Amino acid sequence: MPTGSVEIVAVGTELLLGQLVDTNTPFIAQRLAESGIDVYATRAVGDNRERIAAAIREALARAAGVITTGGLGPTVDDLTKEAVCDALDLDTQLYAPALERMEAMFAALRRPMRPNNRKQAELPRGSRPLSNPNGTAPGFIAFARDGGFVVSMPGVPREMKPMLVEQVVPFLRERFGTGEAIYTRVLHTIGIGESEIDHRIGDLFACSENPKIAVLAHDFRADVKIMAKSSSAESAEAAIAPLQQAIEERLAGYVFGRDAETPASAVHSQLQARGWRLAVAESFTGGRLAAALTGVAGSSQSFTGAVVAYDDSVKIGQLGVNAGSIGDFGAVSEEVALEMARGVRDALGAQIALATTGIAGPGGATPGKPVGLAWIALVDALGRQRASRFELSGERETIARRATTIALGMLWRHLAH
Amino acid sequence: MPTGSVEIVAVGTELLLGQLVDTNTPFIAQRLAESGIDVYATRAVGDNRERIAAAIREALARAAGVITTGGLGPTVDDLTKEAVCDALDLDTQLYAPALERMEAMFAALRRPMRPNNRKQAELPRGSRPLSNPNGTAPGFIAFARDGGFVVSMPGVPREMKPMLVEQVVPFLRERFGTGEAIYTRVLHTIGIGESEIDHRIGDLFACSENPKIAVLAHDFRADVKIMAKSSSAESAEAAIAPLQQAIEERLAGYVFGRDAETPASAVHSQLQARGWRLAVAESFTGGRLAAALTGVAGSSQSFTGAVVAYDDSVKIGQLGVNAGSIGDFGAVSEEVALEMARGVRDALGAQIALATTGIAGPGGATPGKPVGLAWIALVDALGRQRASRFELSGERETIARRATTIALGMLWRHLAH
Repeated sequence: MPTGSVEIVAVGTELLLGQLVDTNTPFIAQRLAESGIDVYATRAVGDNRERIAAAIREALARAAGVITTGGLGPTVDDLTKEAVCDALDLDTQLYAPALERMEAMFAALRRPMRPNNRKQAELPRGSRPLSNPNGTAPGFIAFARDGGFVVSMPGVPREMKPMLVEQVVPFLRERFGTGEAIYTRVLHTIGIGESEIDHRIGDLFACSENPKIAVLAHDFRADVKIMAKSSSAESAEAAIAPLQQAIEERLAGYVFGRDAETPASAVHSQLQARGWRLAVAESFTGGRLAAALTGVAGSSQSFTGAVVAYDDSVKIGQLGVNAGSIGDFGAVSEEVALEMARGVRDALGAQIALATTGIAGPGGATPGKPVGLAWIALVDALGRQRASRFELSGERETIARRATTIALGMLWRHLAH
Repeated sequence: MPTGSVEIVAVGTELLLGQLVDTNTPFIAQRLAESGIDVYATRAVGDNRERIAAAIREALARAAGVITTGGLGPTVDDLTKEAVCDALDLDTQLYAPALERMEAMFAALRRPMRPNNRKQAELPRGSRPLSNPNGTAPGFIAFARDGGFVVSMPGVPREMKPMLVEQVVPFLRERFGTGEAIYTRVLHTIGIGESEIDHRIGDLFACSENPKIAVLAHDFRADVKIMAKSSSAESAEAAIAPLQQAIEERLAGYVFGRDAETPASAVHSQLQARGWRLAVAESFTGGRLAAALTGVAGSSQSFTGAVVAYDDSVKIGQLGVNAGSIGDFGAVSEEVALEMARGVRDALGAQIALATTGIAGPGGATPGKPVGLAWIALVDALGRQRASRFELSGERETIARRATTIALGMLWRHLAH
């Protein structure tokens, strides 16, 4: 159990002007939650020395420690270190290793080092430096006389994130002596609604305090999270495994992956298991399916390519769709979707093919064919084929994104079963 | 000039656990900045009555008013109204119009109204209700005896945003008597670095207090923002226009659009002006160029389609690339990029074509061809062609996204000049 809590203070006037969305604070909050460390409150303040110092003092009055991000750079607007010194009544001292590292970096770049860079190597007296392999400004942990502490990290996410995970979280876990951490297993589902999930596994929620279960709904997908508070990875795994097995059995046919897996990576695993290659024909999804599939490293082994047949002439010329089918049934129809899938499979030399055709809007609706209407078809080397009709809601980009998720889900289920 | 400032308090334990990224606060901050109203600080607190009340009291000690979001729903976790009453020492009173509206809604849905819904129609005594056409919970503005105020709005963005824009901002502008608002014109550039922009227009920054100028750098793009504080749109336009003209002249050839325009929409405008249609051949960008181009409503008029030639067999079979060129120069080469562009232009019946080939990583590098190497080519109906080589840094998705931006920029410049 946590024996202390922290507050997070994000520094930067651009945050108060709404010019920048602060993603650092939720990232830190998540990592702390996983380690069983409570966050009492979070806040954002501008680049103002007095206000930053006041925020730190207020936070330390309630919480055991404060974590700040931002304001450690070399410019006159970067005032976090000075404010920490004010709040804790400390002066600064030169941190020699940081200075040496900075001198080496500037020498390598053949650029002169300015006095304001040198300032970055000065840290509050008695503080513990946090090394920054991805930038010039080191972070630090400064200590108040009454036992409170302030962790200050740079605001650039690429610099802050590894510093937090590798240096700050271990410090906090030791400091708070939690011993326990929260271990999480995520089961990703597709094609099943939140209420149906609740119906099938709701009784497991009720009887389980540790591990805890939570369902997080996304657009046409849902994640089941199993969270175990435990003193070791092994004991956590032992607590999670039976629940995971029960949930996977009850949701059989819908769980496409675990933890970092995505619909696209699950599709690639299935393709590789069969030695199949996939081709895609896209109309209104306009490249989004191909982009999702090529987002997976190594996807070239199981993805041959795609034809974005936005214009009907491309459907006919590249995919061999019958002009007659378009004339008789319209470009958004079961027949054309299936012909697109067959055409791209043959043209691109694949064993399985997926095709989308639909109306993303805002224009393009006709009587009986509203904005959001979609046909998704697939055909495989065994001669199996299927096509499904959907009516999707939302704006243009939302409709295209939803169709992409649905198409990946259809393809995964076809391959997995 | 603003005569007061506000603090924003977001309520919700999920914010402290990092389960939800707070987009309400930046949205509110932006709208207030545009209206010339200062935000002193922002914070997030959990669903805890005492802590919410304490946050409101602290904020009111510094700022003229507080804006809260979240915690107005019907559940036991929704405690913002109670906390506002605690902080301002007020009790509640029933707000009859909200109750009537709620009763009508439940009757229409044929669902019974619960006592906890009735609770939502009770507001802090003496407060001004804020109607909520998109949900059940009304917002309110509660008043402290010493002149401070608390604006409370629901946390659902779809409910909060219109309430803020239509009801809260007018209240604040009247309250603070600013009369003035900030009007903004954004000029989007591509293909020019931040330091070169600074070199060309830096003197305009220095001599201009109102309108103000700011440069915001994105990945391979930069925006120049001109912000005029003014009492009317007409006088703002009169102040912005000469500066805009001067900046556009000095950055001629790089400003692709204004305000809501994107690189893709600028490309479509250029294509439509010429009556040209575009085709795209993508290798490592894997559909991202097509997705960006089809994100523009009405793009079917000037975009025929794309071939995502992920596998070399598709480059050869669909695009007519010479197997010999791939053998001699490699798939990531000037020759293959140009052949892809010519091939897709001819195959898809377009007047202009764009092609990308590169190594997104993490695998695929060969001696002399590192991860991040990219060739982007274009050919048009007038026989003009060009190909450029880039070395991009970042992870797989970043490299693909950067190449997409660069390709759109190349295409826009070719069309515009």
